[in-house]
Amino acid sequence: MNLPEKVYVAEIGPRDGFQSVKDPISVEDKVKSINMATEAGYKIIEIGSFVHPKAVAQMATTDEVAKLINRKDGTEYRVLTTNQKGIERAIAAEVDKAKLTVSASETHNKNNFNTNREKAFEEFARCVDAAEGSCLKLSGAICMSFGCPYDGKTSIEKIEAIVKKFIELGIKEISLSDTSGMGNPLEVYEKSSYFIEKYPEVIWTLHLHNTRGLGLANAAAGLQAGITRFDSSFAGLGGCPFSPNSSGIISTEDLVNLLEEMKISTGVDFDKMIKLGKFIEELVGKKGDSYILKSK
Amino acid sequence: MNLPEKVYVAEIGPRDGFQSVKDPISVEDKVKSINMATEAGYKIIEIGSFVHPKAVAQMATTDEVAKLINRKDGTEYRVLTTNQKGIERAIAAEVDKAKLTVSASETHNKNNFNTNREKAFEEFARCVDAAEGSCLKLSGAICMSFGCPYDGKTSIEKIEAIVKKFIELGIKEISLSDTSGMGNPLEVYEKSSYFIEKYPEVIWTLHLHNTRGLGLANAAAGLQAGITRFDSSFAGLGGCPFSPNSSGIISTEDLVNLLEEMKISTGVDFDKMIKLGKFIEELVGKKGDSYILKSK
Repeated sequence: MNLPEKVYVAEIGPRDGFQSVKDPISVEDKVKSINMATEAGYKIIEIGSFVHPKAVAQMATTDEVAKLINRKDGTEYRVLTTNQKGIERAIAAEVDKAKLTVSASETHNKNNFNTNREKAFEEFARCVDAAEGSCLKLSGAICMSFGCPYDGKTSIEKIEAIVKKFIELGIKEISLSDTSGMGNPLEVYEKSSYFIEKYPEVIWTLHLHNTRGLGLANAAAGLQAGITRFDSSFAGLGGCPFSPNSSGIISTEDLVNLLEEMKISTGVDFDKMIKLGKFIEELVGKKGDSYILKSK
Repeated sequence: MNLPEKVYVAEIGPRDGFQSVKDPISVEDKVKSINMATEAGYKIIEIGSFVHPKAVAQMATTDEVAKLINRKDGTEYRVLTTNQKGIERAIAAEVDKAKLTVSASETHNKNNFNTNREKAFEEFARCVDAAEGSCLKLSGAICMSFGCPYDGKTSIEKIEAIVKKFIELGIKEISLSDTSGMGNPLEVYEKSSYFIEKYPEVIWTLHLHNTRGLGLANAAAGLQAGITRFDSSFAGLGGCPFSPNSSGIISTEDLVNLLEEMKISTGVDFDKMIKLGKFIEELVGKKGDSYILKSK
């Protein structure tokens, strides 16, 4: 079994986790969570998103959060956005990277982002222009890279068309996002292998939801294909706030445990990770989808 | 990614799942569950155990259950036991197979079975004698094949010593059981590959608990090593009845979904499997550890 020696775990709980919480989380608690993540040793932290506050009210304070967090050299503070306004906010907030997000599913683009692929990339071109000359780096993310509850399975061709558009814009870090948790290990292995081999100049990330319990199995398959970057959320926080049984992205604790058990280095301090997970469970007042936290 | 075309899923919920339930389950409900499992297409069903009723009160009715279930040609009805008395009950109950169970961990042997490895195999020799001339087939299971909370990681040497003892007794079907859920995909792949290669005459099964959320990732690793038999429990029922957060073996619904999504044939009727899982959740009055059922 071929496995990498080292993996970057991106702690995206402050964005993907918190946005699933209905009640407002204070700026102070958000800052505390991000500072704890920095101290735990994550080299990438997604601190929030710059989207319209009417779309995701919980993320409306991201500008303020960005000002107040303690930053550490060598740690990347990232946000998610979909438009030029977000890029301008990201530059003002002095974050390191903005992740431009689009879906492989047109139904999802319409319902979630109120756009389509063509319009999204017209906007992304404006984002690239807006970022030029600043210190802000850009990456891309392709939601529903494995399947969509509305549009069904996602073909490699459909993803590749989007990959090419990102590369045309000079964006060479791309996340294959299993937003619906419909991927399986064989598919994750095959798609990851295909894209790593065909586009070796791109830095690939897997973003794996655990909707069908396959998140960690899919991560293990991605590792075998050579993927070395994975998103995850503290305490397994995520999913839809209005549906108690929906699962979000894989939990950070379970992912780091999987990696470290297989002797893959993450640089994460296990005790500080657990402390952060426990803090998050107390903050949101419920147990998340994290087996390691359940056992502690 | 090398994968088998066909896999046998052993539905062991009537034993491993029900024994975790504190309140007595009626013979009628046990029989109904097993009949539904037969109809759903499982080719192996573990219908209960023949152990001392003081040890596991929930299993005291297994003799009666065995008499009342509808049997289907080509389906194997199996029980778990650890001693000669159990073999005699298994023969009287006319089940197809008895699984002789011992632990790779001496602490676990002592705490759980009130024996040690040497004494267990002296008893197993008597079991083999008792089964001779009957229609009862025997298999073996090695608990804690990956690690033990008390004794730590389990070495290949420790497992192999037990494997050899089973083979000496003429038993050529063996389960590597991750009773504590401490295995990881790399280890499952390496141990499975080692034993399949070195003992090709043995039929190998993986029995994977989901304590750290790695059950399905470990199953996917086992498949890659060539394992074609897996235990699982309806509705993910299992774990310790006195510890609400402990996980049992992987859920049947999630395992079958994993396999079928990877185009591996199981022969299981998906709708009937879901119906059985829902029945079990109603019967025990709680949601189990099954993502597929949560999404239904």
